[in-house]
Amino acid sequence: MLSTMRRSPAKALRGAIDDFAAASPPRFAISVFALLVLLFTALFSLPISSANGAVTPLADSLFSAVSVICVTGLSTVDMATHWSGFGHVLILIGVEIGGIGVLTLASILGLIISRRLGLRSRLRAASDSNPLRTKKGPVAEGQAVRLGEIGGLLATVAISTLVIETAVAVLLFPRLLIQGVPLADSLWQSFYFATMAFTNTGFVPTASGLTPYSHDVWFLGLIMVGVVLGSIGFPVIYAVIRNPRRPRRWPLHVKLTLVTSAILLITGAIAFFVLEFSNPHSLGELDPAQRTLQSVFYSTMTRSGGFSTVDVSQLNGSTLLVTDMLMFIGGGSASTAGGIKVTTLAVLFLAAFAEARGNEEMGAFDRRIPGDVLRIGVSVVLWGATIVAMSSIVILQLTGAPLDFVLFDVISAFGTSGLSTGLTAELPDAGVYVLASTMFFGRVGTVTLAAALAASSRRQLFRRAEERPIVG
Amino acid sequence: MLSTMRRSPAKALRGAIDDFAAASPPRFAISVFALLVLLFTALFSLPISSANGAVTPLADSLFSAVSVICVTGLSTVDMATHWSGFGHVLILIGVEIGGIGVLTLASILGLIISRRLGLRSRLRAASDSNPLRTKKGPVAEGQAVRLGEIGGLLATVAISTLVIETAVAVLLFPRLLIQGVPLADSLWQSFYFATMAFTNTGFVPTASGLTPYSHDVWFLGLIMVGVVLGSIGFPVIYAVIRNPRRPRRWPLHVKLTLVTSAILLITGAIAFFVLEFSNPHSLGELDPAQRTLQSVFYSTMTRSGGFSTVDVSQLNGSTLLVTDMLMFIGGGSASTAGGIKVTTLAVLFLAAFAEARGNEEMGAFDRRIPGDVLRIGVSVVLWGATIVAMSSIVILQLTGAPLDFVLFDVISAFGTSGLSTGLTAELPDAGVYVLASTMFFGRVGTVTLAAALAASSRRQLFRRAEERPIVG
Ligand SMILES: [K+]
Ligand SMILES: [K+]
Repeated sequence: MLSTMRRSPAKALRGAIDDFAAASPPRFAISVFALLVLLFTALFSLPISSANGAVTPLADSLFSAVSVICVTGLSTVDMATHWSGFGHVLILIGVEIGGIGVLTLASILGLIISRRLGLRSRLRAASDSNPLRTKKGPVAEGQAVRLGEIGGLLATVAISTLVIETAVAVLLFPRLLIQGVPLADSLWQSFYFATMAFTNTGFVPTASGLTPYSHDVWFLGLIMVGVVLGSIGFPVIYAVIRNPRRPRRWPLHVKLTLVTSAILLITGAIAFFVLEFSNPHSLGELDPAQRTLQSVFYSTMTRSGGFSTVDVSQLNGSTLLVTDMLMFIGGGSASTAGGIKVTTLAVLFLAAFAEARGNEEMGAFDRRIPGDVLRIGVSVVLWGATIVAMSSIVILQLTGAPLDFVLFDVISAFGTSGLSTGLTAELPDAGVYVLASTMFFGRVGTVTLAAALAASSRRQLFRRAEERPIVG
Repeated sequence: MLSTMRRSPAKALRGAIDDFAAASPPRFAISVFALLVLLFTALFSLPISSANGAVTPLADSLFSAVSVICVTGLSTVDMATHWSGFGHVLILIGVEIGGIGVLTLASILGLIISRRLGLRSRLRAASDSNPLRTKKGPVAEGQAVRLGEIGGLLATVAISTLVIETAVAVLLFPRLLIQGVPLADSLWQSFYFATMAFTNTGFVPTASGLTPYSHDVWFLGLIMVGVVLGSIGFPVIYAVIRNPRRPRRWPLHVKLTLVTSAILLITGAIAFFVLEFSNPHSLGELDPAQRTLQSVFYSTMTRSGGFSTVDVSQLNGSTLLVTDMLMFIGGGSASTAGGIKVTTLAVLFLAAFAEARGNEEMGAFDRRIPGDVLRIGVSVVLWGATIVAMSSIVILQLTGAPLDFVLFDVISAFGTSGLSTGLTAELPDAGVYVLASTMFFGRVGTVTLAAALAASSRRQLFRRAEERPIVG
């Protein structure tokens, strides 16, 4: 108390935020995101934000704010035409804050967990998979993470983000000029596209969207690079940059993320290629090279990029179901992508493989994975499945729309994918609020849940007798 | 070899079967079920089996055989009118064999696992949850289960089954007489209904089906009792009979099964009541008592009873999705119900609860549940989700039918529920074979997978370094 009183008011405020953040980091993270959403809802409601100078209705401005801050990319209005120039600047700023915020949040929570894990983390610091956790070496048990450290991490993440986005924008820029877009517009649009790609948002700056470039391998390729870099996660980028030529030295998390992402990308592309082969609305009229390009692009976007060169509502039901599964899985941990995350899926399968081979413990790449990681993974999947189920049931009941479309848009919201069958734009207000909640809980909930679970631990005073229920 | 040569041919055959069964009990079980399916396919193809005296096409006779042996209750023909009297006797016999077979199979596999687990099982014999495993006390490690024991178990299961079915039939019989059904028909139909209820099949003996009794609390109540007893599983019935007044002494498996089943039953009934409240095709025109009765009945049938008093294709999309989830979960382990089983779901949630509370180990009712049970549960869920996904994708692509209906009938096939939107009856031959495989793998696969996984174990020669991937 005394030390607080001797500080300046600014320091006292900072101390108070520190204490609030330290008491429950996940709660703090959720509060920050909720405040950002409220702020952007207010800003989007302003007449100056909309193209026609009118006040945007609450349902639309709230939905847009959630979609921007959670880098989802779904929309109830035509994002390209509804907003003014000021509105588009808001969107770009919101997406940067949201994207960098989630990256930082996930990383900070990882840092906090490693502090909480204390002794255990000290013992395995040498092999720890999260570079963010060990970068300052072993730490004292129970030590809190101070705002100063968060600032350092935030700066690292923000600089990396801007470097990658600028690189993609610089490479997109000449392509836009060639297309005949005026110089200033090309500059703005190329940075807009690059940001929407790396943050895995998927909004487009003009009404024509991707259409002028929908068969262009250079343009689509750059968008894919941006989306993949954003969706693979900061810990992976960090580890690969540090040790680019020695994949064997990469932490387990990095190897698992890269392998699982590659498998999902290839499987998704093959599935799209096969299932849509003769659909005239997607691949039916294209040559083999374009069929391949479009399949790879579509598969990449399900990670949670959200850009689309095809009309999703015209795809086959089988393709929509495959997409549902890919969007539910999402991208890498501590990335701008959503979903349950690729490592979560990997851990579930590794557990099944271990059991099938009769091993007592699961593992991969010559490393053992402790059992509580599986329990966290199961929790995340149950959380995701529950949100998707509840949201789908309510929206089905509200709209009577077909399950194909409802499930697709709900999973797109949960996984912050942003692909849409068009249902989102036609929802009644009640449905808009439900879907906005789905985006928020899908984005913020999944990240904080895993962190909250990993951080909690208490000693058990006595060991209970063991008993095996029959399963299956 | 010498001992075999000295035996009679019958004993030699029995020895050979013993050896084959002991080498890989799950493979043996799958072989037996496959042979039964082939036998019944041949029998259903005979002209004498069909009402019009013609040969039933292969797709239909195979589908019927799988549906009967796997006690699923789906059909590509009108089961009540397509078959002759002889055909209906075949159905009844097939259902009894299938129902008792699955009960026995699951129990035997449990028995074998406990032998394999050897030393470990000896140590915890006192607290073991599966009565079938401990009934003969601790056993020598590696000791095989002989056909003699299987015979004893089979007899126990068969007698219990017939006693329960007869009791339900005796109580149904007067209700059918009151309805004006002739004496001999009442006798046959009451036993037919009772068998279809306890085995969780859901076929009906006449074209009118449940219609004459669709608002009758006595008739529907008895069907529900039969379905619940069948779906709750033999280990539960056995434990409750042995200790009817001391629920505290029931094994963990029994408590988990009963509590989870009750939660699912009540949740399902409430969901049906709320979602269908104003649907004129289901509850819209009914009084509160009938609304409640129909809701409870429908919820019970999703466990995997398969009887229906409503036209499923007229239900709301939201109700279909809720039903999908309930059918995927199914009933109790070692029961006539299908699905991933209620204890599997319970174990997943217990793992999440343990993680949320920071406990190192999961448990329930003052008992600790070992980690490999969670891994088996995860394996079963992945297996189920993979089958449902693959089957749905193929059938969506084959038929272009809406996802609501495809997912419903596919999950109904996987969970051997037998409820149908009508899609099954309209499938092209290729779709019929896919759905038949779904039924077979859903029924036989789930039971044998869990057993095969639990039985496998090998010592690891060295302990790998631990490393934690980030999940969520
Ligand atoms: K997105
Ligand atoms: K059934």
